[in-house]
Amino acid sequence: MADINSKLDIGVTTGPIRGSRKVHVGPLGVAMREIDLEPSSGEQPVRVYDTSGPYTDPAAQIDIRRGLPQLRRQWQRDRGDVEEYTAREVRPEDNGQLGPDRSGGVPAFPNVAKTVLRAKPGANLSQMHYARRGIITPEMEYVAERENLGRARIAHERDGQDWGASIPDYVTPEFVRDEVARGRAIIPSNVNHPEAEPMAIGRNFLVKINANIGNSAVASDVASEVDKMVWSIRWGADTVMDLSTGRNIHDTREWIIRNSPVPIGTVPIYQALEKVGGVAEDLTWEIFRDTLIEQAEQGVDYFTIHAGVRLPYIPMTARRVTGIVSRGGSIMAKWCLAHHKESFLYERFDEITEIMKAYDIAYSLGDGLRPGSIADANDEAQFAELYTLGELTRRAWAQDVQVMIEGPGHVPMHKIKENMDKQLAACGEAPFYTLGPLVTDIAPGYDHITSGIGAAMIGWFGTAMLCYVTPKEHLGLPDRDDVKVGVVTYKLAAHAADLAKGHPAAKVRDDSLSRARFEFRWRDQFNLSLDPDTAEQYHDQTLPAEGAKTAHFCSMCGPKFCSMKITQEVRDFAAKQNAEVESFVAAEEAEAGLARVGMSDQDMETGFAEMSRAYNEGGRELYIGAGGREHD
Amino acid sequence: MADINSKLDIGVTTGPIRGSRKVHVGPLGVAMREIDLEPSSGEQPVRVYDTSGPYTDPAAQIDIRRGLPQLRRQWQRDRGDVEEYTAREVRPEDNGQLGPDRSGGVPAFPNVAKTVLRAKPGANLSQMHYARRGIITPEMEYVAERENLGRARIAHERDGQDWGASIPDYVTPEFVRDEVARGRAIIPSNVNHPEAEPMAIGRNFLVKINANIGNSAVASDVASEVDKMVWSIRWGADTVMDLSTGRNIHDTREWIIRNSPVPIGTVPIYQALEKVGGVAEDLTWEIFRDTLIEQAEQGVDYFTIHAGVRLPYIPMTARRVTGIVSRGGSIMAKWCLAHHKESFLYERFDEITEIMKAYDIAYSLGDGLRPGSIADANDEAQFAELYTLGELTRRAWAQDVQVMIEGPGHVPMHKIKENMDKQLAACGEAPFYTLGPLVTDIAPGYDHITSGIGAAMIGWFGTAMLCYVTPKEHLGLPDRDDVKVGVVTYKLAAHAADLAKGHPAAKVRDDSLSRARFEFRWRDQFNLSLDPDTAEQYHDQTLPAEGAKTAHFCSMCGPKFCSMKITQEVRDFAAKQNAEVESFVAAEEAEAGLARVGMSDQDMETGFAEMSRAYNEGGRELYIGAGGREHD
Repeated sequence: MADINSKLDIGVTTGPIRGSRKVHVGPLGVAMREIDLEPSSGEQPVRVYDTSGPYTDPAAQIDIRRGLPQLRRQWQRDRGDVEEYTAREVRPEDNGQLGPDRSGGVPAFPNVAKTVLRAKPGANLSQMHYARRGIITPEMEYVAERENLGRARIAHERDGQDWGASIPDYVTPEFVRDEVARGRAIIPSNVNHPEAEPMAIGRNFLVKINANIGNSAVASDVASEVDKMVWSIRWGADTVMDLSTGRNIHDTREWIIRNSPVPIGTVPIYQALEKVGGVAEDLTWEIFRDTLIEQAEQGVDYFTIHAGVRLPYIPMTARRVTGIVSRGGSIMAKWCLAHHKESFLYERFDEITEIMKAYDIAYSLGDGLRPGSIADANDEAQFAELYTLGELTRRAWAQDVQVMIEGPGHVPMHKIKENMDKQLAACGEAPFYTLGPLVTDIAPGYDHITSGIGAAMIGWFGTAMLCYVTPKEHLGLPDRDDVKVGVVTYKLAAHAADLAKGHPAAKVRDDSLSRARFEFRWRDQFNLSLDPDTAEQYHDQTLPAEGAKTAHFCSMCGPKFCSMKITQEVRDFAAKQNAEVESFVAAEEAEAGLARVGMSDQDMETGFAEMSRAYNEGGRELYIGAGGREHD
Repeated sequence: MADINSKLDIGVTTGPIRGSRKVHVGPLGVAMREIDLEPSSGEQPVRVYDTSGPYTDPAAQIDIRRGLPQLRRQWQRDRGDVEEYTAREVRPEDNGQLGPDRSGGVPAFPNVAKTVLRAKPGANLSQMHYARRGIITPEMEYVAERENLGRARIAHERDGQDWGASIPDYVTPEFVRDEVARGRAIIPSNVNHPEAEPMAIGRNFLVKINANIGNSAVASDVASEVDKMVWSIRWGADTVMDLSTGRNIHDTREWIIRNSPVPIGTVPIYQALEKVGGVAEDLTWEIFRDTLIEQAEQGVDYFTIHAGVRLPYIPMTARRVTGIVSRGGSIMAKWCLAHHKESFLYERFDEITEIMKAYDIAYSLGDGLRPGSIADANDEAQFAELYTLGELTRRAWAQDVQVMIEGPGHVPMHKIKENMDKQLAACGEAPFYTLGPLVTDIAPGYDHITSGIGAAMIGWFGTAMLCYVTPKEHLGLPDRDDVKVGVVTYKLAAHAADLAKGHPAAKVRDDSLSRARFEFRWRDQFNLSLDPDTAEQYHDQTLPAEGAKTAHFCSMCGPKFCSMKITQEVRDFAAKQNAEVESFVAAEEAEAGLARVGMSDQDMETGFAEMSRAYNEGGRELYIGAGGREHD
């Protein structure tokens, strides 16, 4: 065991993100990241949303065999609606028929709780249930603080096109409660995952991203799986889905959840399929239900349930170019066809909902019939399923259970907005959670980019969470570098969406970075970027010297000529001219007995107008300031 | 010299792109690429647009000391409007004051023509001039064949949102002529660059991409510069801009142009600035004019001219976050301010146009005041310049000179469309040529992606050519890998734009690749992709065995379970059911005395309807085919 443990220790990435400090804000100690800027900038630190958990906190003691502290446990107990009970025993089939000697298996998590929590009989632990009764939970307060990023202290102008969203200037706990109550946002928070830092997924909050991890039949190990989670959240994943198949599913998931500060999602049908040896037609409601309980007790925060893949829709896919590409969707399609029966996920939906509310697991209603190619986008099968997801949303909401809706897939740009509009209409503004979409099929190896384009657009249109795609999509399993590239790509897409929606705090970081760029504060530019390590590394490939990081030029133009340097001269010149004009005007005004204090914007324009008169050539006004435009 | 020559030979990449064959189509032998598919597919080869020139033709003899064959020379002579004259002599300042011993210099191109061509007195060599007189040139015929990609033989449905473009089902030479005549497309084709394969840049043609190369003060060498061009066009660059500064500019450019099958663009003010030792205020019209002639005689196909940076607009940039980020723009701004004079580029515009028409050089009217940050997007300075570019377009068109318009830069998503709409209105639909735009500032190291998002969108809205951005943007100089990533990213963005516009031939490649993916024709999938090498390499990282390339599963799900395999079963099942239905219907029809041949789509729907009746459970129709939808 010693070997394995030391391997586990090595496997997890810790330490602050370059140039950032962990801060804990407000009475709940909401974790955020602050980026300090060079004193010469005269600027406040920039506060950014932080998904990385204690792993980037030098003060935290990380021991993945113990798991993270249980941030939410006391809040849960204080509500008085939970009961503790002995968890379902782990069975061989939970780990893919791993024998009692566990040969070929990963080590079991050494700190498994013997008892777990669920709702007392008749109770409902869902955040939506509290919200609808007017209760502001600590989870909602945490979310409010977290989303604000201190925007109250920032003078921000609103600028954007929000397509009908309702983004407030300032997020209050009451706003969070209201959004959750009406189903426009969810806070995935299984009572058995008290380690998670509360976060919201909703159209009126910052756009979130999800990273998928998971071993597969082709093999992986638990240390690398836990670190994939840690690595994903380091770069910005807001939630992580564990899509493991094959052996060790149960144990791997336990390691991940106990060490995860972000919500964990799964697709329970994957594990259920393993339990019946991979034969879809052998699936039963009982096996599926047992899997839900197993995962609920472990603390999975949201379940992808493909309950919209109904028997009548399956033939609609037969003439598609790429048929059914969702794994969950095709499992259910096969089951339905084999039995000539309606899906048990659809038939038993209300029973599933009963389980969800006992643990506060959120639905992620799967789009099992999403298009797998440009040719199949926005087709009948896809939208037929979407309307059913809308029906299921209403049924889940009837029990106060939180819901989000999964979306495509592969969609050319001109068909993206229709997806968003139909989803909003069909699902009553329940949060949309899309995979990309990829805007072309012809770039395998670059599908983080083909999908990043679609993700940015659909995020702008109103999608609440974007499921990342890595460069290995369609080709192979992502490695550590692929995961990082996927996360950063989606983080930039989500941020671009926030900017375009006019999210009040979003532009702060862009502006700060651009000022740093303009003033040749290279370190500030690196530190403010989504990936400071790569930014610095790229810079150093051309100009490795330490001095180049403080030099007032860059590698594009070299020291001799630099457009930003020239702009500074333009600016100095304009200021100097204005100063001349100012003293002239001041003298005039002094004569007229007027007092003047400094230069306003209006003065500056006046200054240009004065310059214009001063340098008038042959009757043509050469300088025209903000007030006078030649063309329009 | 032997060393240098062998280095040059090594430096240039030759050989076919994996899985592709070079083909020459039609009477003009238009170069294209065909991708053969596995015989099992039963599909025709897929023909794709090919920018790579003879370098990917195994039959071609490549010797970069000799340069490429002069494809267009005879066409030019046949028109009878050119005169041959002795070229301007190369001066030391052309190469950055390189002394006569050429120490520190690259070797001169060994095959420089002693005489060059220009229009006879009173003549105008511009393609626009021919077009307006109703002449269809071989260049236009070449473009028509090239753009079609054999789409006449493809049964295509039109599907897209073209925002008012006028994309024809089939491109005729007359259509090309008409587009060039009205200024909606350009064919950059300097009479002294007869090696170039004609191509069109215009909203109603395939969206094009440009790659920037160039040495810099920080150093490079001629072999790598030539190969950067060859490498860029291999992956899809439609034009290449040589942005070299420092020494060896003239000689490097000669090497590039003589070996380039794509149009070459430059920013002549860069070289002019070198000639005055980097001191912007020392620039004169005479030095600039001399530089234009120098480059015109070498064969530069389009010039970026920042004639829209007018003195009145400069103060508008003083309060920007990032001032003037265009190098050309800031050079001219500095000159204007230093002299208190209107820009000589603006003042002498019609004289510049006289030069352009004598060689058929196209204008690329530079956006010297483009925004360099999200904060500065769509501001007064930017649009003031744009309106001036519209005025200059009309002045150039008055002399039948081809024009495209450069555009931003950094623009959040919600402000992109305004750029396109204003450009179309202000510049009379002259082709728009944008740099990105980047949709956020916070991702240095990933700016090929932040800008690829904006590029795909603005390409969709109507931009004719997208100037690539590499991952090194803002940080350093791109290396070979960066150039490839930049080109492929822009190629996928341009293709996504073509798809969304509903370009008739665009979807053929997506569909073919998706069918290959669905049918596990791995090699076809690699070969049809924009970057077959990377696609195969990524695949092999997970499943390196040769057998895995023909295996009917992929690494995502492993051999045990595969969603595509299940879909095939669904399809087989549906077909079997239909076969049953078909024989049933056939029997019925035989009874009724009707003949049947095979199954049509309509039959298939009927089949589902039959299934629906057959498997009717408790009065609910379980199978609903394309004809009947439960929800809408």
